[in-house]
Amino acid sequence: MRMRERLYSLVNGDEGEATWCGRVMTVLIVASLVPLCFKDSNPALEAIEYACVVVFILDYLARWVTADLKLGKGALSFVIYPFTPMAIIDLLSILPVFLALNDALRTLRVLRLFRAARAFKLIRYSRSASAISAVFEKQRQALLAVLCFAIAYILVSALVVFNVEPETFNTFFDAVYWAVVSLTTVGYGDLYPSSDVGRAIAMISSLMGVAVVALPSGIITAGMLDELRRDDDEDD
Amino acid sequence: MRMRERLYSLVNGDEGEATWCGRVMTVLIVASLVPLCFKDSNPALEAIEYACVVVFILDYLARWVTADLKLGKGALSFVIYPFTPMAIIDLLSILPVFLALNDALRTLRVLRLFRAARAFKLIRYSRSASAISAVFEKQRQALLAVLCFAIAYILVSALVVFNVEPETFNTFFDAVYWAVVSLTTVGYGDLYPSSDVGRAIAMISSLMGVAVVALPSGIITAGMLDELRRDDDEDD
Amino acid sequence: MRMRERLYSLVNGDEGEATWCGRVMTVLIVASLVPLCFKDSNPALEAIEYACVVVFILDYLARWVTADLKLGKGALSFVIYPFTPMAIIDLLSILPVFLALNDALRTLRVLRLFRAARAFKLIRYSRSASAISAVFEKQRQALLAVLCFAIAYILVSALVVFNVEPETFNTFFDAVYWAVVSLTTVGYGDLYPSSDVGRAIAMISSLMGVAVVALPSGIITAGMLDELRRDDDEDD
Amino acid sequence: MRMRERLYSLVNGDEGEATWCGRVMTVLIVASLVPLCFKDSNPALEAIEYACVVVFILDYLARWVTADLKLGKGALSFVIYPFTPMAIIDLLSILPVFLALNDALRTLRVLRLFRAARAFKLIRYSRSASAISAVFEKQRQALLAVLCFAIAYILVSALVVFNVEPETFNTFFDAVYWAVVSLTTVGYGDLYPSSDVGRAIAMISSLMGVAVVALPSGIITAGMLDELRRDDDEDD
Repeated sequence: MRMRERLYSLVNGDEGEATWCGRVMTVLIVASLVPLCFKDSNPALEAIEYACVVVFILDYLARWVTADLKLGKGALSFVIYPFTPMAIIDLLSILPVFLALNDALRTLRVLRLFRAARAFKLIRYSRSASAISAVFEKQRQALLAVLCFAIAYILVSALVVFNVEPETFNTFFDAVYWAVVSLTTVGYGDLYPSSDVGRAIAMISSLMGVAVVALPSGIITAGMLDELRRDDDEDD
Repeated sequence: MRMRERLYSLVNGDEGEATWCGRVMTVLIVASLVPLCFKDSNPALEAIEYACVVVFILDYLARWVTADLKLGKGALSFVIYPFTPMAIIDLLSILPVFLALNDALRTLRVLRLFRAARAFKLIRYSRSASAISAVFEKQRQALLAVLCFAIAYILVSALVVFNVEPETFNTFFDAVYWAVVSLTTVGYGDLYPSSDVGRAIAMISSLMGVAVVALPSGIITAGMLDELRRDDDEDD
Repeated sequence: MRMRERLYSLVNGDEGEATWCGRVMTVLIVASLVPLCFKDSNPALEAIEYACVVVFILDYLARWVTADLKLGKGALSFVIYPFTPMAIIDLLSILPVFLALNDALRTLRVLRLFRAARAFKLIRYSRSASAISAVFEKQRQALLAVLCFAIAYILVSALVVFNVEPETFNTFFDAVYWAVVSLTTVGYGDLYPSSDVGRAIAMISSLMGVAVVALPSGIITAGMLDELRRDDDEDD
Repeated sequence: MRMRERLYSLVNGDEGEATWCGRVMTVLIVASLVPLCFKDSNPALEAIEYACVVVFILDYLARWVTADLKLGKGALSFVIYPFTPMAIIDLLSILPVFLALNDALRTLRVLRLFRAARAFKLIRYSRSASAISAVFEKQRQALLAVLCFAIAYILVSALVVFNVEPETFNTFFDAVYWAVVSLTTVGYGDLYPSSDVGRAIAMISSLMGVAVVALPSGIITAGMLDELRRDDDEDD
């Protein structure tokens, strides 16, 4: 079983050979996204596509085979592993290629959405995001409260505007889309109320949007200052 | 009168049976909003509609009957209660159904606006919003000053642009709508000045908008930091 | 000259009779703005118009006659006073009515822009704005540096986009308007680059806009916290 | 070699004659941008153009000749200097005029983009920007992490939307442009998803955009407060 342990340190470690292994994987993940940036496929892009998928399958198997060393729950680990979030993302980034071989065309288009999940694999290999995620982690509850408030407000204002202006918004989803785009102050201008009552609601939504932008700013700033103060204390 | 006291603790309390009563009400309030998300009515949606309204009427009566225990002003409480903000919202969420039975069609559409008031009943049953509302409560004066300043600025810039470009803005309300959408940096693009003077005003409005977004951010952040510091002091 | 001193305390003071005098002026200033909110004039609006102007002329004369008590520079005060910022605003809010009597029609429309200056007279009579203006006053230098940076960036990006896409932007003013609307993240959508180079510049502008919004937020928050800390120290 | 030392202090120093030399250069840099603000050239604008370029060439040569005094690496300095960022900007602001003399017309248009680089020369001569740049310098790492996160998010959401709605977005660049305009909450409205899946992605992008605006705000505010505290400590 020495070989399984070496394999485990190769795909999970961050020293010696594992560093190079990680770098090669990062390059391959980025490379596997390149074919998605073009509308028309060509032999070169397909070669990248299949080369990446082969490595991803080997990576997936290597991780699954060494699951007990990672999760530390004995034989049960091999059953649990495929259902861990990272394993699901790994699987979703491999699957579309196989499904495209069988029946491509129309369904493929929707499945390609899952192929973009590859990008999230990058999270495993990056380090610069850890500083920001620490602030998000600590202020999680306050940010969740703001998100709940924002979602509640979005649904309520969508409900009101959908009932006031049924001629502008075809479905409730349209109204929710409008509410999000207004509250976040993006305002594309593809959907907007045209009646006076609808405009009054849009005005209130826009003003509330300022609060919704201001609140996470305040929470994140407070968290950031806390982090900086802790660093200062450690320096002293 | 023991029964009235039990009824009071059931609709207002947050222990034992009252917890379950509150949860059922929350589910019913959310359920009562579902029919509003569809354009065409069907028997299932109407069933939800009337079931919710029956419970809301019982809830309204239960609260009114126990008003003296809540407000603590004796017999006068029964007269005052229907005019408290929450009682008005409760009534407005019941009324539209009755009015729709008599004369529906056109007027109904405007009345449905009030039906969305049901959503605001959720405030009474949520707890996650309390942390945010504490900051808003404490910084109320500063935020009101910003709101006054923003409203004054909106009215002035609407006034200026309405007189400079009467061909773009039909009514003063249109100009106010434009000013709000610009100052909050939403910018739908359904209304915008096209003359050079009008554009100059739009530019000043946009730049002022940055200040209007920055000010509440600053006030809320300061309040959030104050709250965190107080928590730290209590921990020590 | 006792009468001049009473007149001075009446228009400038904030005690006794002066309080009422100030409140009447505030109401009149707001009333004088009402005719500007309508496209078509009618006898009632014209009556408000002329009544307000008569009071504004009396107010202007009363302030001019007591200028030496305000500025404290003897006879010279009467010469300096009409050139102080507030006196110029006062004059600009009276003049348009007289000019409209002589030659109205076309030129009037542009002059009405100055009539809106009346609204700024409200600043003299409001108190809620003092808290916010204190923060702005203290952080003036930092905010000016941000404003200079923003204006410099706006001019540079306007210059670049104007030279890259001459077919979209007719004049340099159009490009400046686009740059302001993009940098402040309003984005009406009436003007936008359509070439790839132009879009690349728009992307950089949008990302810089985040910094331009973030910077004043930071400065104002820092000022706000400073103000709060000072209040705390005074309470102790 | 006394003359070379005098020349060095003239172009780099900030005392006596050098102050005036710097002010003249600032005026000339601004003047050289004027011809770029007009679509049609005329003799006056061309005169400004060539006068400025002559001075810029002399300035460039003066800086190159005194490179060893600036970089302090002996004869090697003369080889290194033309590749320092400022020297490259200086050269790019001179070159387009010469190239326009040889073959103008079409290629000129793209090269004019580089001519705007002149504006960045202003950085060397301004002082008000130093306060802001200090905060950016100190918080460089945190801001870079946010920028990396924003760019990663922009690329991923562009990738997803490009594959979900190939009918709206012609090229991957279009999708990136849309993602930037959405994430920074500008939202021109020239490009927006029209399918339900696309709109769902737009909604997530808009909400993420709030975080992307909030994060730099937090970081810059924290940096600004740190700067202010340091100033207070120095005052004590």
